[in-house]
Amino acid sequence: MSKVQEEVLKANRAYAADFGAKARLATPPARRFAILTCMDARLDPARFAGLSEGDAHVIRNAGGRASDDAIRSLVISYKLLGTREWFVIHHTGCGMLLFTNEVMRGLLAGSLAPASFTGGQWQNTGQGPGSREGEYIEWLTIQDAARSVIDDVERIARHPLVPSTIGVYGYIYDVATGLLNEVPGAQRPAP
Amino acid sequence: MSKVQEEVLKANRAYAADFGAKARLATPPARRFAILTCMDARLDPARFAGLSEGDAHVIRNAGGRASDDAIRSLVISYKLLGTREWFVIHHTGCGMLLFTNEVMRGLLAGSLAPASFTGGQWQNTGQGPGSREGEYIEWLTIQDAARSVIDDVERIARHPLVPSTIGVYGYIYDVATGLLNEVPGAQRPAP
Repeated sequence: MSKVQEEVLKANRAYAADFGAKARLATPPARRFAILTCMDARLDPARFAGLSEGDAHVIRNAGGRASDDAIRSLVISYKLLGTREWFVIHHTGCGMLLFTNEVMRGLLAGSLAPASFTGGQWQNTGQGPGSREGEYIEWLTIQDAARSVIDDVERIARHPLVPSTIGVYGYIYDVATGLLNEVPGAQRPAP
Repeated sequence: MSKVQEEVLKANRAYAADFGAKARLATPPARRFAILTCMDARLDPARFAGLSEGDAHVIRNAGGRASDDAIRSLVISYKLLGTREWFVIHHTGCGMLLFTNEVMRGLLAGSLAPASFTGGQWQNTGQGPGSREGEYIEWLTIQDAARSVIDDVERIARHPLVPSTIGVYGYIYDVATGLLNEVPGAQRPAP
């Protein structure tokens, strides 16, 4: 077992030791909303949005993008589990701002080893083998944080499986202040 | 602004008021690992795995499945941001155990209004309109929690963009106890 596994399991044992009433939470989110946000390590949606266990669905991917898989999750969230409001939260300083499909595909084709961002650009640090499989993936990078929030709220709000009764709200989380800032043009209130 | 929005923003203001050193965290996860888990409201990966802001990537979707979008996020996580170990964590009592593609597609075709689980089966609670768009989505439901963890760890470990140097570990989180339990046959240690 790796050191990280040992640390995670030790923290988990401590968490479970004081589990209390959390053992009896229901499956549907008590506060009937969902958050779609980025996987970024600096973001803790439960802490920055005040969630207790049982409150809300949290969906996360690279960028917090309205990918097909995020749509799958959101539709399950409302249709089977009753959420009625969704927050789409991207953030300042997102890694998705620092590359393009072409860059990522080139890096992966060169080597599977990690790359480093040096002198304003990405460079492979290891030798091959690489893989051209990256050419078959749309990486959903971001050119402008406000634009990507507007685009993603629009995609979600207009999706044929999303009822017009669901509120969809776009925000940008500022990693330097911890604040959620509303994105104008990315608000689709519930009627 | 809805009541939920007001509550979230109030909690966010309180969080940001005591932001401290979190303002200076780096983008790459300090502890160099990622967690892929379910969007379920009862799960708080930061709390159950002992994460502070900045420690680890967290990817979440319905079921915690190794979807194409989860693979996209994981590849970005190691290739550009240096993670070396990944936890795949499904959980007991997952909603994904309670339906199939056919059930979901039928419900959505009947009505976009929320369904309810009554007498051991799903039923639409509202009238139409529905949409057949659900037929074009693979819902990634789960028949057996241990099996889905094994399948997902295997998919990730064998993916052409995932180097053999990355450790991939499968667990089931028990919603009645808070404990992470290792899934035999779903462990691919780093060499």
